[in-house]
Amino acid sequence: MKKNYKMTIAYDGTRYYGWEHQPDRDTIQGKLESVLEIMCGEFIDVIGAGRTDAGVHAKAMTANAVMETNKSEEEIRDYMNRYLPDDIAVLEVREASERFHARYKAVGKTYCYTCYDGPVKPIFQRKYVTRLSSPVDVEKMRQAAVYLEGRNDYKSFCGNPKMKKSTVRVVDSIEIKRSKGYIYFTFHGTGFLQNMIRILVGTLLEVGRGAMPPEQVKDILEARDRKLAGPTAPPEGLCLIKVDY
Amino acid sequence: MKKNYKMTIAYDGTRYYGWEHQPDRDTIQGKLESVLEIMCGEFIDVIGAGRTDAGVHAKAMTANAVMETNKSEEEIRDYMNRYLPDDIAVLEVREASERFHARYKAVGKTYCYTCYDGPVKPIFQRKYVTRLSSPVDVEKMRQAAVYLEGRNDYKSFCGNPKMKKSTVRVVDSIEIKRSKGYIYFTFHGTGFLQNMIRILVGTLLEVGRGAMPPEQVKDILEARDRKLAGPTAPPEGLCLIKVDY
Repeated sequence: MKKNYKMTIAYDGTRYYGWEHQPDRDTIQGKLESVLEIMCGEFIDVIGAGRTDAGVHAKAMTANAVMETNKSEEEIRDYMNRYLPDDIAVLEVREASERFHARYKAVGKTYCYTCYDGPVKPIFQRKYVTRLSSPVDVEKMRQAAVYLEGRNDYKSFCGNPKMKKSTVRVVDSIEIKRSKGYIYFTFHGTGFLQNMIRILVGTLLEVGRGAMPPEQVKDILEARDRKLAGPTAPPEGLCLIKVDY
Repeated sequence: MKKNYKMTIAYDGTRYYGWEHQPDRDTIQGKLESVLEIMCGEFIDVIGAGRTDAGVHAKAMTANAVMETNKSEEEIRDYMNRYLPDDIAVLEVREASERFHARYKAVGKTYCYTCYDGPVKPIFQRKYVTRLSSPVDVEKMRQAAVYLEGRNDYKSFCGNPKMKKSTVRVVDSIEIKRSKGYIYFTFHGTGFLQNMIRILVGTLLEVGRGAMPPEQVKDILEARDRKLAGPTAPPEGLCLIKVDY
């Protein structure tokens, strides 16, 4: 009998073309589906809570898959980890209700974007942080971030110019913390548009380096025009931390 | 006028053939010397506190180099970091007494060896830990480690079978800590023989997995016979933490 399994997955996205499967390219979903196809003897659709961009990481992506197996939850986890490459890990496998759907049932997501503006390049974290060429002012970025919280139309921060559906989203909180040379931007919201967090960070960094006053972010939001926002920050600093259900 | 500079260097040793320069192979010393040769217009000898093996990392290796430059300490550091690959960083450059010698003046070293025995492979730390195939008993390894502290002849733990000089060393302390799935072995001593820490860890892991009683380590030490000790643990778990002067 087929059962629905909820999976929590961590990955280092450095060498992948993002979450979503693509022919002839390494993707996270593609790797997971390949392993499950071997385990189950048939193609298994792995549904992720969202699609992370090429080069973006995850500490706890959630996915689900409906499949038939006589393995226990731990046995599925161990099987997958044995055959997955060493930059993808299945942290947990749990049997879920048949109605559980990793994307439709997600009610919130936490992402962290990490930058580094210290004088010496970070060696061991180099694949997980975006290095800035000059120091940024965290207090100014915090002032700007306040304008970006709440229920808003984030069209100015959407990476897809052909987006037909609503670009209204709810961003509950944007926290910005500094610890030594590292700056951590933590976003929590119900959902995010394509490239949205990277464009938000790219814009906040413009404020942080003094190229834009904090208040200007409010105008950018209201203009609903991608051209007014900052550049899309590089993918390597971004990590999906948690999906809420 | 030539001056003597003390340098603190961090590196991810994954893709290097160790510290010491070798023709046609990437090494840490080789990379540092190449950059300084361009900076100074002549070959500069970089003297390290010790030679780490291929694949071993450092959070703070100390080195010194005698050279003539009109750059300030920070300018030397920034120049080196700009031209070094992204897995080697110069943390600090300080003018030192002309008598300072990174190897001869070193009076102590701290190394940390990190293992992981949790059920799920560690994704983000994978290049800096040695993953164990089954859980180990930390308490037993601590009992065994006590026999390995002090002033002893460590011939059984020396990776160089042709070692002619004294194999007597002082190991002040071996601390073993567990935090979740990670096991941290911290060694402090006046100096270590070739592969010594990796063989000590390889032997302690034999105790940890129950293949050897803790007391047997005492016999191995006294026998002065490499064949009786455990295997040489892999390089990726080892990191030079600090050099004392």
